[in-house]
Amino acid sequence: MVLNFYAGPTALPAPVVEQIHADLTNFQGTGMGVMEISHRAPEIEFLIADAAERTRGLLGVGRDWEVLFVQGGGSLQFCMVPVNFSGPGDRVDYLDTGYWARKSIAEARTLGRDVAVVASSADRDYRYVPVAAAIRARPDARYLHLVTNNTVEGTQLRRLPQSGIPVVADMSSDLMTDVFDGCGCDLAYAHAQKNIGIAGVTMVAVRKSMLERIGGHSELPGQPGRPARPAILDYRTHAAHRSNYHTPPVFSLYVTWLMLGWLAGEIGGLAEMGAINRRKAAALYEFLDETPFYRALAERDSRSVMNVTFTLPTTELIRQFLDESGKAGFAGLAGHRSVGGCRASLFNGVTEDMVARLLDFMHGFARRNQGGTFNG
Amino acid sequence: MVLNFYAGPTALPAPVVEQIHADLTNFQGTGMGVMEISHRAPEIEFLIADAAERTRGLLGVGRDWEVLFVQGGGSLQFCMVPVNFSGPGDRVDYLDTGYWARKSIAEARTLGRDVAVVASSADRDYRYVPVAAAIRARPDARYLHLVTNNTVEGTQLRRLPQSGIPVVADMSSDLMTDVFDGCGCDLAYAHAQKNIGIAGVTMVAVRKSMLERIGGHSELPGQPGRPARPAILDYRTHAAHRSNYHTPPVFSLYVTWLMLGWLAGEIGGLAEMGAINRRKAAALYEFLDETPFYRALAERDSRSVMNVTFTLPTTELIRQFLDESGKAGFAGLAGHRSVGGCRASLFNGVTEDMVARLLDFMHGFARRNQGGTFNG
Repeated sequence: MVLNFYAGPTALPAPVVEQIHADLTNFQGTGMGVMEISHRAPEIEFLIADAAERTRGLLGVGRDWEVLFVQGGGSLQFCMVPVNFSGPGDRVDYLDTGYWARKSIAEARTLGRDVAVVASSADRDYRYVPVAAAIRARPDARYLHLVTNNTVEGTQLRRLPQSGIPVVADMSSDLMTDVFDGCGCDLAYAHAQKNIGIAGVTMVAVRKSMLERIGGHSELPGQPGRPARPAILDYRTHAAHRSNYHTPPVFSLYVTWLMLGWLAGEIGGLAEMGAINRRKAAALYEFLDETPFYRALAERDSRSVMNVTFTLPTTELIRQFLDESGKAGFAGLAGHRSVGGCRASLFNGVTEDMVARLLDFMHGFARRNQGGTFNG
Repeated sequence: MVLNFYAGPTALPAPVVEQIHADLTNFQGTGMGVMEISHRAPEIEFLIADAAERTRGLLGVGRDWEVLFVQGGGSLQFCMVPVNFSGPGDRVDYLDTGYWARKSIAEARTLGRDVAVVASSADRDYRYVPVAAAIRARPDARYLHLVTNNTVEGTQLRRLPQSGIPVVADMSSDLMTDVFDGCGCDLAYAHAQKNIGIAGVTMVAVRKSMLERIGGHSELPGQPGRPARPAILDYRTHAAHRSNYHTPPVFSLYVTWLMLGWLAGEIGGLAEMGAINRRKAAALYEFLDETPFYRALAERDSRSVMNVTFTLPTTELIRQFLDESGKAGFAGLAGHRSVGGCRASLFNGVTEDMVARLLDFMHGFARRNQGGTFNG
């Protein structure tokens, strides 16, 4: 049994994996495996609609929100957001809080938008996030884009800014991990492979009033009467077709539907999931703070509940830690290749028991290598 | 046991489903399910590279071809093809052979390309495909785009035109179903859910010389030095990162990898798969031609080996046929909603035995409703 702390794809809850086993050859009495049924069959159309309903229920938003399921991950959203809500030369504002935020900024620049980085944490190596209250967007910018949880750096923006313009939140690594602040944003997106399923499907929760802002900002000047963007990149296409415009990634969507059922049923909702997630992270951060052998990388006020980044006194000890932890059955504790060090990702599928066992290992490893504290 | 004749997603071969069962909780001794492993883990990086190798082996192409796996289905390819190989105002040529061809044309027009439909079968309701030898492309067009198999109409272009310009083939419903004519095209793409797996992953086989044609055709005039298109939409991004630029749809890709192994191992290659597929289709078309109660919809020379479209004498009999076939355990025999009638899709996962059982049912249904032939 491997304990999976990968940064995504990562561990699914055991009951979800069991259900997948059961549905692999006979889904809901159809006599067909869930992967093999047409996306136009009533069972799959129901599944898609019900996944949207479950999402609304968990997020606590009403029917003034659309819930869409699309392909392409966060990376395609980096392109779809500017393409839908702005045209070339339009002002769009971004927060720069790390690796993924920078990727989203690059795509908007490639598309010729007038991009302003209205707050950045580059000055301290992305170990913190800007204070929400201090963030000022340009009043005529089309939207403010931000990443709520920075998976690579292990920081998290726990409160969204009141910027006066529409807020678009990349919540790829923390949507559905705690109570959702629907007031704080107008569009939230998250690929599934961290907290709500497996790779291949991306959830987009968007206010209908935000969809109405999609207009004729064509990339191509002087072409009246022609659609402003390819149908596949227009959120309204997916909304009009209830996420079934073209063949959706049925199996990935099915796993998300199971995860949403597990969150609502077994866990009891996002408040309960949030409490569990905060306990997991608190246990790990407390240990890191108490143990001079380890050092947490993110600044205290900006620490992520999802991704705990930390380091050890020497490169050699880091290598040894990763090697020994792998042999002891812990997977995925290496930091992102762009920052190095170590990282434990504590997504929804990671249990408190898994964290306790990780702490036991880390405790033992520190004891066995006592000489090498940062201080001594 | 249901016999699955859906037009996609559709039946997977039984050994593939068995293997999925086995890998769901412990993939290759990792102690983790295949869905739960990081896309950067060596097992998954190997799987992606090996899927590309298996593809080259089956298609019989060398390392002068790139094999990419991307998200977004054929529908995103309708957008990526013009975005990569042309700029606004550039000439691009298309064949119009039906429902999906028209969708590809619409996206190129939305992007402001100078689109010419160089051959169309609209005049006879898309029941045939143009003769390859008669197709003339504009010599200065950037590419000729065509759909080889028209899933909705049940027609198939069995020979590719020698057009003198690069040929881009949407082979979503017939790639990997018979020997591949690599000489005939420069880029072939296919979503997986028909013949090579499940929904969520799209295979793109492209000559490296074709990738070199991707240049600075930006949608945005006058922005020198800036990338011409979003990274996620640039084929070269996916080539440079070996289909692991962002998190790939790991599970769907894994199923494709299994399907490719099954095609090469159990079936013995594309010549053998082609022979099986042609026998399945021949059995069904022969029966349709011999039985006046049924009528095949596609013109004889244009008939698809993959999707057999047919009709019955009256709307009432069609409804009765679909109803009774469903009760008898046959799924997916309704025609596409845009054309009506009936359709049996005979993709790689459909066995000869399944076709024999379908013929038994169709024979019995005709006998029970003898009065209603087209002639009598």
